[in-house]
Amino acid sequence: MAVTPEDRRYMAAALRLSRWNTGLTATNPSVAALVVSDGAIVGQAVTAPGGRPHAETQALAIAGDRARGATLYVTLEPCSHHGRTPPCANAIVAAGVARVVVSLTDPDPRVSGRGLAILREAGITVESGVMEEEGRRALSAYLMRQTRGRPHVTLKLAVSADGMIGRQGHAPGEGQLAITGPAARAQSHVLRAESDAILVGIGTALADDPDLTCRLPGLEHRSPLRIVLDRHLALPVTSKLVRTAHAVPVLIAALPSPPREEGARRADEGATPAEHTARHQALTAAGVEILAPESLPMLLAALAARGISSLLVEGGATVAKSFLEAGLVDRILLFTGATTVGEGGIDSPLRHPDIGAESSTATAPAGFRLLRTATFGPDRLAEYERSS
Amino acid sequence: MAVTPEDRRYMAAALRLSRWNTGLTATNPSVAALVVSDGAIVGQAVTAPGGRPHAETQALAIAGDRARGATLYVTLEPCSHHGRTPPCANAIVAAGVARVVVSLTDPDPRVSGRGLAILREAGITVESGVMEEEGRRALSAYLMRQTRGRPHVTLKLAVSADGMIGRQGHAPGEGQLAITGPAARAQSHVLRAESDAILVGIGTALADDPDLTCRLPGLEHRSPLRIVLDRHLALPVTSKLVRTAHAVPVLIAALPSPPREEGARRADEGATPAEHTARHQALTAAGVEILAPESLPMLLAALAARGISSLLVEGGATVAKSFLEAGLVDRILLFTGATTVGEGGIDSPLRHPDIGAESSTATAPAGFRLLRTATFGPDRLAEYERSS
Repeated sequence: MAVTPEDRRYMAAALRLSRWNTGLTATNPSVAALVVSDGAIVGQAVTAPGGRPHAETQALAIAGDRARGATLYVTLEPCSHHGRTPPCANAIVAAGVARVVVSLTDPDPRVSGRGLAILREAGITVESGVMEEEGRRALSAYLMRQTRGRPHVTLKLAVSADGMIGRQGHAPGEGQLAITGPAARAQSHVLRAESDAILVGIGTALADDPDLTCRLPGLEHRSPLRIVLDRHLALPVTSKLVRTAHAVPVLIAALPSPPREEGARRADEGATPAEHTARHQALTAAGVEILAPESLPMLLAALAARGISSLLVEGGATVAKSFLEAGLVDRILLFTGATTVGEGGIDSPLRHPDIGAESSTATAPAGFRLLRTATFGPDRLAEYERSS
Repeated sequence: MAVTPEDRRYMAAALRLSRWNTGLTATNPSVAALVVSDGAIVGQAVTAPGGRPHAETQALAIAGDRARGATLYVTLEPCSHHGRTPPCANAIVAAGVARVVVSLTDPDPRVSGRGLAILREAGITVESGVMEEEGRRALSAYLMRQTRGRPHVTLKLAVSADGMIGRQGHAPGEGQLAITGPAARAQSHVLRAESDAILVGIGTALADDPDLTCRLPGLEHRSPLRIVLDRHLALPVTSKLVRTAHAVPVLIAALPSPPREEGARRADEGATPAEHTARHQALTAAGVEILAPESLPMLLAALAARGISSLLVEGGATVAKSFLEAGLVDRILLFTGATTVGEGGIDSPLRHPDIGAESSTATAPAGFRLLRTATFGPDRLAEYERSS
């Protein structure tokens, strides 16, 4: 039995549903499953927040007896290994499902292909690779950590209509220069809720004193790990980040050759080893964790090792350039505001496709392709994904 | 001198900028102005929150001497009447602007054409009607109140993947059935901030006990007037709406022949005239305003008379149908979630274009045309505007 257009429609529905718990399922991916019997969806579920139970067992429980002879659509190959719960593949067999349609096979070596083999051995018809490209996109963070040992990195930039990401000399406590409006800012908070960790440079941390939490109604508790690139431990203990470190974790990555940031150099002037030690002690006492990885790739590896699958890089220009130049960016979200910054502006490393100074044609950054555009009130979004 | 492609680019930028303060400028429209001199934007502004000062005077003040000989782009004809401040048209003349490019002429009879006439008489080159369709869209709420004497009405529906807007028997206090995810819900809060008023039926008010405020960071104080269609004054004094009426206004519209809603009929059983009077007194004492308009169009006229330019209709199905059947809907925002409701579902009056039961082709509701589609996490948005 071949893959039908209806199969693709149900898989598309399952893939949309799978995004429901993105960022909330710990080290497990957010997977969706639909049970379809006689043309009706009789069970549907997403991996629960925290990662358990899996989507398949929940969807089968909802379907009950109606799962017998039904088709199960699942966005990732069902698991075959005994973890804290019996494998999903066995549960599918026990439920009497007649046919299983899968988007992606699992890159986890404990599973890969074995989940499908268990199904086939039980006489279940199996189709895999249905809407595989979309499946890969929906599970990109999980795949990146499984196959490359680092988190999936999203670079978010908010750029003014004249291609600036802020203004020089923007003093601490002055508040953020509003480049985008409320609708785009609301999206930024959603992005934070979907990410396991969020990263800024010390320059941004000093200039804006951000708290980097998610402040959407109902999502306040989904704030990601907050990371600051800060070689000289210049983050003040009075900053919002440090003051909230006991509630939402903060990690300082003291890279040996960090991106140069104005604020960091200023704050570091005259710092002696004794002062450095004192800063270390004060930050640690405030609940901040301090890491000293050798490089950006080593930082990412350390994050992946502790289960971080998705990292959102929020600013500023220097940090954005570092990640881009190191080839460590998988997705770019470029918000272009309607305001101009003018004189004293800090150039963005990227510009919206149609406002390039030299060209008015739609061009993606090198190595990226445009995935979609959208508007949020006065602002425009261009989303790019790595093209290789 | 003719209109150039560059003129259209600057006007497009101004139109995007004009949306910055949508919903925040009281009875004035949110207008944007750009001052361009030697190919650079030397001044830009939007109507200030509250409606004053106007965009033109602010942009000219920022530009200072650089406004002399410059081109001014403004999304609406500059005002020509002496209100609380001198007319913008005179300020433009005084600033020495050489050329003014306008999108829309003002439908306000005190202004229409006279603002442009003042400019022309002073020897300024004037181009009007540049990107007029987009200008009309950006100023649709203001135009609707000025030309038709009623607010611009946006109908927002959140529909499940199987075309339901909720479930029958969904009891009060049970909380909202989550049809859409966090990203779409964040957009709903932005929509509320952009609206002057928001309306639900008593059935929705009883079933969900919503507070209908805007709870986005920084936008908490931009909550619109909250309106409930409630003939029998069934809204409990213990509801979130009534309990917060002193902080954010609540208006009950007791229409004589309201949309039939399950909850309202239940709540009304056995209500005597004395009980009705007691309810009226209790609600009024709690800070709720009660109106008894003769019909939906009369309610809208009353709202326009008090300066409400934009109304967001949020639910439920009965109210949506009433507005659609009365021809009072100007824009539809149809969010389609990834979940299914299944048995006991309440049919939506509208469905996402590609999930119609009979047809898989993209079809707009009768009398509407599809303006754009977008995705918010697992959910899809289709935006329609009235086609006539």
